[in-house]
Parts: sequence; structure tokens; C-alpha cells
Amino acid sequence: MKNKRGFASDNNSGIHPDILEAMQNVNSGHVVGYGGDLYTEQARQLFKEHFGKESEVFFVFTGTAANVLGLTAGTSSFNSIICPESAHINEDECGAPEKFSGCKLLPVETHDGKITEEGVKKHIYNINFEHHSQPKIISISQASEMGTVYSISEIKALADFAHQNNMYLHMDGARLANAAISLNCTFREMTGEAGVDILSFGGTKNGLMVGESVVFFKPELYQDFKYLRKQGMQLSSKMRFIAAQFIGYFKNDLWKKNASHANNMARILSEKIKNIPSVKITQKVQSNGVFAIVPKAIIKSLQEAYFFYVWNEDRGEVRWMTSFDTTEDDINNFVEILKVEIEKLNS
Amino acid sequence: MKNKRGFASDNNSGIHPDILEAMQNVNSGHVVGYGGDLYTEQARQLFKEHFGKESEVFFVFTGTAANVLGLTAGTSSFNSIICPESAHINEDECGAPEKFSGCKLLPVETHDGKITEEGVKKHIYNINFEHHSQPKIISISQASEMGTVYSISEIKALADFAHQNNMYLHMDGARLANAAISLNCTFREMTGEAGVDILSFGGTKNGLMVGESVVFFKPELYQDFKYLRKQGMQLSSKMRFIAAQFIGYFKNDLWKKNASHANNMARILSEKIKNIPSVKITQKVQSNGVFAIVPKAIIKSLQEAYFFYVWNEDRGEVRWMTSFDTTEDDINNFVEILKVEIEKLNS
Amino acid sequence: MKNKRGFASDNNSGIHPDILEAMQNVNSGHVVGYGGDLYTEQARQLFKEHFGKESEVFFVFTGTAANVLGLTAGTSSFNSIICPESAHINEDECGAPEKFSGCKLLPVETHDGKITEEGVKKHIYNINFEHHSQPKIISISQASEMGTVYSISEIKALADFAHQNNMYLHMDGARLANAAISLNCTFREMTGEAGVDILSFGGTKNGLMVGESVVFFKPELYQDFKYLRKQGMQLSSKMRFIAAQFIGYFKNDLWKKNASHANNMARILSEKIKNIPSVKITQKVQSNGVFAIVPKAIIKSLQEAYFFYVWNEDRGEVRWMTSFDTTEDDINNFVEILKVEIEKLNS
Amino acid sequence: MKNKRGFASDNNSGIHPDILEAMQNVNSGHVVGYGGDLYTEQARQLFKEHFGKESEVFFVFTGTAANVLGLTAGTSSFNSIICPESAHINEDECGAPEKFSGCKLLPVETHDGKITEEGVKKHIYNINFEHHSQPKIISISQASEMGTVYSISEIKALADFAHQNNMYLHMDGARLANAAISLNCTFREMTGEAGVDILSFGGTKNGLMVGESVVFFKPELYQDFKYLRKQGMQLSSKMRFIAAQFIGYFKNDLWKKNASHANNMARILSEKIKNIPSVKITQKVQSNGVFAIVPKAIIKSLQEAYFFYVWNEDRGEVRWMTSFDTTEDDINNFVEILKVEIEKLNS
Repeated sequence: MKNKRGFASDNNSGIHPDILEAMQNVNSGHVVGYGGDLYTEQARQLFKEHFGKESEVFFVFTGTAANVLGLTAGTSSFNSIICPESAHINEDECGAPEKFSGCKLLPVETHDGKITEEGVKKHIYNINFEHHSQPKIISISQASEMGTVYSISEIKALADFAHQNNMYLHMDGARLANAAISLNCTFREMTGEAGVDILSFGGTKNGLMVGESVVFFKPELYQDFKYLRKQGMQLSSKMRFIAAQFIGYFKNDLWKKNASHANNMARILSEKIKNIPSVKITQKVQSNGVFAIVPKAIIKSLQEAYFFYVWNEDRGEVRWMTSFDTTEDDINNFVEILKVEIEKLNS
Repeated sequence: MKNKRGFASDNNSGIHPDILEAMQNVNSGHVVGYGGDLYTEQARQLFKEHFGKESEVFFVFTGTAANVLGLTAGTSSFNSIICPESAHINEDECGAPEKFSGCKLLPVETHDGKITEEGVKKHIYNINFEHHSQPKIISISQASEMGTVYSISEIKALADFAHQNNMYLHMDGARLANAAISLNCTFREMTGEAGVDILSFGGTKNGLMVGESVVFFKPELYQDFKYLRKQGMQLSSKMRFIAAQFIGYFKNDLWKKNASHANNMARILSEKIKNIPSVKITQKVQSNGVFAIVPKAIIKSLQEAYFFYVWNEDRGEVRWMTSFDTTEDDINNFVEILKVEIEKLNS
Repeated sequence: MKNKRGFASDNNSGIHPDILEAMQNVNSGHVVGYGGDLYTEQARQLFKEHFGKESEVFFVFTGTAANVLGLTAGTSSFNSIICPESAHINEDECGAPEKFSGCKLLPVETHDGKITEEGVKKHIYNINFEHHSQPKIISISQASEMGTVYSISEIKALADFAHQNNMYLHMDGARLANAAISLNCTFREMTGEAGVDILSFGGTKNGLMVGESVVFFKPELYQDFKYLRKQGMQLSSKMRFIAAQFIGYFKNDLWKKNASHANNMARILSEKIKNIPSVKITQKVQSNGVFAIVPKAIIKSLQEAYFFYVWNEDRGEVRWMTSFDTTEDDINNFVEILKVEIEKLNS
Repeated sequence: MKNKRGFASDNNSGIHPDILEAMQNVNSGHVVGYGGDLYTEQARQLFKEHFGKESEVFFVFTGTAANVLGLTAGTSSFNSIICPESAHINEDECGAPEKFSGCKLLPVETHDGKITEEGVKKHIYNINFEHHSQPKIISISQASEMGTVYSISEIKALADFAHQNNMYLHMDGARLANAAISLNCTFREMTGEAGVDILSFGGTKNGLMVGESVVFFKPELYQDFKYLRKQGMQLSSKMRFIAAQFIGYFKNDLWKKNASHANNMARILSEKIKNIPSVKITQKVQSNGVFAIVPKAIIKSLQEAYFFYVWNEDRGEVRWMTSFDTTEDDINNFVEILKVEIEKLNS
């Protein structure tokens, strides 16, 4: 349990100093609780700038909560939600979506964490048939859990398909900033303008202490959402401190700097290792994660130097996530150790 | 929505500087997420010091979550939970306990927010009768929502009754520190030692930014709790910052200083107004809240000077909460305004 | 566990012979399952005759299911449901409404099982306040669990109040036939025309084997109800046999004969005992139940002769329910035994 | 909606005359409701004869309810349930398992509706990892939804695997009688003795009007089940009529006669068509269903003569279910029509 640097997850990093300062800036006097304060309103207006006037934001504590409550807002309990098998909502939320929404999740196998119309269609049948959970949401992650990124036209295609089938498109944007950097586009172009109806927009993985949000692009989806958030145990009493983090996040394009840096670190890491024999990069490096197969025998030693998670035990596939505070030294040291370990193995 | 000082709630205050400093102190380098870090372990050990070695703590974001998840841990969906009608779980959590646990809440009318064996007994019938939700938890708030405090012997009596009837005793300790000051006892004496089985222990109302916890006193209650917390959307990725707040809270008895101050401010306020004609204090002032009936005609003017909530419109009963950052000037100014308004009314 | 006649409940009787015959009449050949058959359509049209063209019926298995699914259709999980404390949904459904709908139940104390606007109003506050479950349904039982009956104007008053407050009126009609006889009105006059939005209409307590239904009076309430019914585990595969029971029930006014008989038996019972010393009838006898206080010492002996339930142990209050198959001999014998037991006591 | 004979489902048949007679036999006098009567006890003892003394039965209304409540009894909301993708619980219960239990369903692709240890293992990972739903039940259908049957040793292998992994084995026995005939074994040999922990045992598809049951083989699983059944809206007030159906079902081995007949009809059908050109039987015919690919062009005409469902539109695969009341004339006529239609097509 010793603390050490690593590539385990972008949430192993701390709070960016500018974010901490933003929190300090609002820490004086009394303000109304639960979001009825001026800072929360200021943050809300910033979201409207970035996501469009018609959008509406609600702050929550975790990415799981953002996903679960956003999905619940768009469904009835007899609906189903189509997503990649590797989706965070399917793999890593301990059944929270099912428990809270009552819905069924319909996984689609993918190679790169991205679904296509083709994969979604497999689950579109028995419509209007009361014995069968009725598909109502397609959920995608941008960037995906495999570090890949949907192009805007890919998002539009899924949104069109969803809307043609009386469904909504949900986007899990725990790493939306990294994707925006990758596509060199605005948040709005990638979300509301591309047809996204419900967005989980996260900050924690990119420098915040704790701050996630649900952004809706259709009024029908959020008119009663304040009750769902409260009943979902996600209404912060001292909301100003979540608002302040997002204010700091948008200020001076901090989100952009942080995400650019993290993406760059991943790119550099991947470039430095791509020609190392016995190392095989398994996914396109489009955001801040590198997936690679390495000799199983060296994984433990590597983890002792820089902590990270094994993604697939059978294949010996590992995941290296970079963060706003990853340094080039981290990369260089790690690549050095990797090379040494592989040499050891071959000698 | 202008920010101004007031007595609306103890959560309208900000973060105590020592807490903010404690957060800064852990803000360097990488640590494992989701509570697998050294700071979380340190905080956990501090809880064991304060609540007993046999206790086990889990951090969550809100008091609602602490209550709901703690109650769920001790029940099956066909159980009922007996509580004062005025309980936060009954009045102010938008049905979150029912939604998440599936249980029925059985309210008991009280005058002072405190239930007795007498009131609980009314709901103990049809035991083993499958048509009837089976009572499984008695829930009390310490301090209560009316600012009153259970004595240790009152807690013990309810715990004994609960255990004799195959039930658990749950304590909502959103303001436990204020109660401990009031009773001049340790946390342990008032909780585990008094027979409490499940405790919601809050920090947010006494100087933290965001930090609540569930403390269990029986292993059978927490063995699977980590899954419930995750499924309940309450697992913080950057857990170190919640842990750090509690570290700062216990350090140098900050919790004690803050709660003592808040309680004192309430006492002073009540003493200064108790002889004002047309003002009637309606509850014993045992923690950091003052409940009083004032002439309805002056409420609006008072609220414009110092914001607070009307507790009961019909009776003209208002609630004034004090906080770690309430000043004597606040009290003096407010009492002055109150006197002036009443004079105006009478002239 | 020996079978014997009694006044325990109207569901201790069997199937009326005409109902059994109606089931036999449809028992030949193959028909489409799950309600897509001609008999179900025939029953549906009969409901439209009795409840109005705009009504829509869905069959389920139990009164609990009719209540729970009907209430769920009219609520979101963050809503509350106001009902008498004595309501079946509050006392005798083991928390099924909370579990399935996620809603909070708000009980109103009553003396006769009937709520008034006055009692409901107590729970109408904190509207649009996200911390508080939002009231959405008023639920009444016709006849009530205490054997009393709402007049049509009482129903209209509650419906008006509900609609003015953006709520629905739900009626638990497990004994609707007995109430219709009592008021000498049609089903329609007492339900849809009086402003009822959601009705649980039962047959089991009045001669059916198993057959309950949910009747909606507004399209917005039932457009997705088929999915709720299926997900609520209430879709019968051999639906024709539930439909057939209702066909038999409406045919030759069987419902009327059965309910008239049961009501008459209760009336006769109450008249024969009202002057017996030491027996005190505690509720108006308006349908098929008699509530009375009798000397506690004789209850056991009475139960051995004719089984029935004690309603309130403290008061020595008992409940005697009559049924379509209660005979005048049952009444006479029972009254005789009652008199003998009281004489014994006094001698 | 005209009623006509067909092969749509075994639940399109009516009530076997012996079952109806068994219901009539208990239809006199008063008995205690909700299962506290002698007939329910008699049926319970018959279950103990057939499933073992240690087993305990609870009656419910539908197969969906038997599955959902049985699964809920063996899980917490943070668990997952592994089943074939084609399982009734996964495909045809409108998300009722997720809604009521809160659990996640983990589908395994199969060719014949039967899963093996191999397929289950795919989902056994991240054990004790709080981010991941914890696998707790393996659910199989006997006979499967594809008409195939698990051998006793296959069941034992899955039970052993489940128990070694701290899981339960659940069996959906909506067509258990057909499987018992197929394996020529007792119910007990195929369930409790083979390691099944939770069984849904259905009667409706084999001659009952409405009657399903949950049978438990471990006391830990059923000690609180009566509450779950009530809360699940599945407690019948006139329980004697469900009990009576099962009494009639076990009497004179009616279950055996009915299932044998249905299985024979499927066998005969499959033998008569197996050599017809353009018809390809796609699954082993081990119970009372025949799956076959036929030319898509003739499906509509066939359905007009004898109604049945298309199983897979793309492949032109259809499902023909036989029942206790299918006649050899039905088979002969249908095969004749099938031949004529195919000839027409080829001419």
C-alpha cells in the first residue's frame, strides 16, 4: 500500500493546483446549500457556453452516478440499454445501472471498445412485444475504455440510428476532454451537435478532486431530474465546491492543458515502446491510455516500479494510463525499466 | 441568490481552514484509488480510536447516502424502519431509503424529534406475519432534527428494546459532534458502547467540504458493504481527499472546537432572545439549533438580514442553525434586528 | 388447520359455481396465450360496458398486484402516495408498493378507514422541493378496510382535490361490488365518472377463483402498462381463464347477487347482535364486514366455533366478514353461540 | 384473433380435465386463505415425496415469478446471474429479474440453449472486486428453451462448479416434466440430488390452469421466502385452488402421461418431417419442441393452418411446440400441409 507513481489510472493523480485554488476562492462566508448559490450558477453558465444554451447541467459526485442517473432519466424500468461489453456501465459499476434504473443492459462485443450500428442492430428485435425489455438507450464512452475515440461522424451515425428507433444516445464522457483534444473539436461539436441526448461529463480524471456532471440536451429528459439526483444520493450540500472546481477547470482552458498533456504522455510512451521486441500495442493510442501485450513474466517487476493494472490475464495485456501530472521522466524511467526487464528475460 | 450570512443551515458554511490544509497535505504524487491508499488507512485507524476497535468505517459523500446504505445493510426489502416522523430519512431524503432498500418507513409522531420505546412499540405487531413489513431497524438522529439530544441512557434503552425484538439500532449522526459536546462524552460512549449497531457519522455540517461515513459495530453488517457502497454510487475514486478531511477533523480535536463553538453560539442566541416578548423558544437548545415562534409578520424582514428557514408556516416557527463559523457579531446583529422588528410591529 | 366455516375473510370462500362453469366453457381447443384471445377481448368489452368506453382494463392475479402496478403506472420513484393508515397498501402488502414503485407511503390516521381532504392536506407541503418526496396519488379503498363506504360526493371531492394538486386518485376496489350495492349505483358512477383515475377492481373476494384487474381512466396512465404488468410478473399465459371468470361475473349480474347477499348477511348479523349487552359495534355496517368489541375472554371460544380474526388485541375488537356463500344458518348459529358465551361470562 | 389449433406454445392448450376436477373437489366450504389450509399442506407433502424431504415448496402464479423470486432469494443486489443468452429469464421476462433482484444478468452464447462450465467460466473474474457484480447463481433451463435436455451428469458438473465457486445452481423447470420423461428419471434425481439449489417447477405448460412453484433445497434459501413471495405480489388468497391443481397433477402420474404424450407428439412430428427436402431440423428433439428451418415463403401459409411462432426471422427458423392435447391428427394434417406447401414452392 506504499504510495508510488504509476500508470494505474488517471484518478491516481491528485488535484491540480489551479482547481484547489478555485476551491479556496469560494471558501468564505455563507452561501445557500444544495446548489442555490452564485458559484453554482456561474458554473452552470460556463457549461452552457461549452455545451450549448439548450443544454442543462446537474452536478454529481461520481462517474457511476452520472451514468446511472442519466440513464435512469431516459428510461422506464422495462427498457434496455445497449452498450459495448467493455463499457464502464457494464463492467465496473457493480450493477448500479440495473439496481437503480431496473433496466437490462445488452452488451455488444467489440475489439476496440467502440460499437457500430451493426453491433447495436443485433439487439433491436421484439419491439412492442411485452415479454421483451424494450431498447431505449445506446450508450457509448468517449474516449472509450480502450483509449479509442469515436469520430464525430461515427457519433452522428449512432445518434441517427438511435433517434430513428425511438431511442436516446448516451455518452459516458469520463474522459471527454481527452477525446476533444484527440479530435481537436469543441465539447459541443462532439456532444449536443452530434446528436448526443445525455452526457456524463467528468472532471475527476483530469485534475478535479471530485466533480462529475450529467448534461442533458433535451428538456423532456431533465424536467424532473433534480428529484432523481436527490433520491440517488448525489445532491451535495456544499455544492459551491463542486461548482468551483468546474469554474477552475474551464478557466484559462485548464481542461485543455491537462488533457493535452495526458494525451501527449500516452503518445510518447507508445512511440518509445512500439519497436521494443516482445511488446505489442493492442489498441490505437487516441487518448491517454496505452494497451499492450508484454511478456507475462515481467509484469510483476514492472508493477513494483510503476503501478498499473493487468487488463487481460490470459493475454498478458496491460493498461497504462497517463494523467495531467505524468512527467516525461516517468515515461523515460518506465521505458528504461521495461527494456531492462525484457533484456533480462531474453538473456 | 446573493450570498449573505445566515442561520439557514450549518452546511451553508464553508470549509474550515484546517480541513482545507489537510487536503493540501495529501495532494502530491500518485496513490491507489478507491480507498486503497495510506491516508484512507490512517483515517480508518482514527475512527477505530474514536469508535472502538471492533468498529468499521466506510466513507461516502452525503448524509443521505450514509443513512440509506447503512439502513440497507441491516435490512431485507420486506423489512420496515421505525423513526420519528421528523427524521431526515423520512422527511428530507426524497424517498431515497424506500427506493434503494425497498423497505417501508414507519413514522412516529414526536414533540421534540426524539422517540421512546412507547412510540416504537406502536409499530411492533404482526411479527412473522407475511402480509406485514417486518420491523428491523429503529432509527434515531443524534442530535435530532429539532436540536435535542438523546441521553446515553435513552440510547441504551432503545438499543436494548431493539435487540430484544431482533432489530438493530441505527443512529443518524449528521450532527454527532454537537451531541457529544452536549453530553460531554466520547463518540464511543454514545454509539457502540450504548448499543448502536449502525451509525451515520457526518463531517460536512461541522467544517468538512464533503465527507460522511457509515460506521458499523457488528461484522455481520459490513461484510458485504463495499459492494453496496459501490452499487450505491458512493465510492470515491480520489478517496484520499475524503480521508484527509477526517484526519484533519480528528487532529487537535478540531471536531470538538468546531462543535463547541457552534453549540455555544446557539446557547448565546437562545439566551439573548428568551426574554424578548412575542418570541417563544419551542425546543430545548441542546446542540446547535434554536427553534422559535416569532410573529409571522417579521419573518421576511429577518430573512433579508440573515437567511434562515421557516420550519412550520402555520405556527410561525423558525429554525436558526449555528455553525463553526458563526460569530458573536452575527448573533448580536441578528438579535438587534429581531428586537427592532418586534418593536416596529408593536408600535 | 381443520377446515371450518367462519367469518375470517371473504376470500375463505370458494369459487361460485357459475364462475367455475364459465371457466369450463372456455376450456376447449387452443387459443393464443397472454391475452391475445377472443375471451379476453370479450371480457375487455364487458369492462368497457361497466366502466365506460374510455376505460382500459388489464388483468392480474392479486389485489396487491393490482394496487402496486396501478400505483406504479401513475408515479415516478420520487413521488409519495397518501392513504389511510389502515389501507391495505400500507398495512397488508409487506411493503410491495415501496419495493416496486420506489415511492414513499404517507399514512393518514382515520377512525373509519376513510380519508378526507383535511387529512390529505396535512401531507401537501414542500412542493417542488427536491428534498421531499412529491405527493402524486391519493389512494382510497372502496369499500374501506373498515367496512365503510365513501359516498359518490366524497369521492368526487377527493378527486377534485387530487386533480387541483396535480395528483391522481387511486381506488382500491377489492370490494367494489359490495360498495356499489351499498350505494345502489353503477361501477362507472363510483369510479371514472366520480374522478377516479386508477382502479383496482377485484373479483376474488366475491366469488372468483383468482381474478383481479387494473382499470385506467386516462390513456397517459396505461400506454406502457403492458410492460409494467409483465415486469411485475402478472401476465397470465392462460389468460382466457381469468377473462372467463369475469365474463361469468358480469353475466346475469352475478356480481350483484353475490355482493347483495354478502352485504345482507353482514346487515343481519349486525342487527342481531347490536342489542346484546357487552357487544359494541364499532363501525358503520355499510358493506360485508362487521367490526365489534366483545369481551376478550370469549374470543377464543368463538373462534373455535367460527373462525375470524382479531382486529385490535388491545381493544378486544374483532372483524367478521361475510361472503357470497355465508348462510343465514351461519349467522343464526354464530349469534346463538355468542349469546351463550356472554351469558356464561356473566353467570 | 380467431381461435385455432396450433404449435405456438404448450400454454395455448387449456386445462386438463383431471386438473379441473381436482379444483372442483376442493371447492366446498370455507378454508383459511393464503395457504394455511389442508389442501396446500397435502400438496406440500406431495412435493416432498417427489423432490425430497429436505425440499420446501412455495406456490406462485407464473414462471416468471418463480424464476425472479427464486433468483432473488439466492442473491444480493450486487450479484450477477450467469445464464444462456437464450434463457427465458434473459429474453422473455421484460427485465423482471433485474428490476426485482437488482442483479446483473450475464448471458452466455450457446448453440443449443445449454451452457457448460466452459461458457460459465468466461464470466468468473474480478472476484472480491467491488467494482464488479459478483457472480452468485448459474441458471439453466430444463428442458431448455431450444427443446434440448441436460443429462444428469451435465447438471452435476454445473452444480459442482457453482458450489466450488460459492455460487448456487438455479433450474428453470417450466418444462421439467418433459425433461424427466426424456431422461427417464425422477424429479428428485434431476434436481436436488444432482445439486440444484433453487428450482422453478411449472405446471401450466403441462395441463394446469395456473400453477407454478419455487422449490428450495437448502434452508438458508427459504427461511424468509414467504415475505419475498408476498412482496413479489405472488401470494394467492384462495391458495387451495393452486394446491389442488398440483394434487391432481401428481395423482395417477398425470404429469407423466401429459409430458410423455407431448414429447411423443414432438418426436413423431420430427420423424415425419426429417426427410422432407427443404426442411432442416436444427435442434435435437429431446422434449416437446421441434425447431426447424423451412422456406421463408411458406411460413405464412403454414401459420394460417396451424399457428406457431417464427424463432429466427433471418434464418427462417420456426418453433413447433406440442402439448398434452396435441393429437396425431394435428401432426398428420400439419405435415400434409407442409408437404403441399413445399411442393407448390418447387413447382
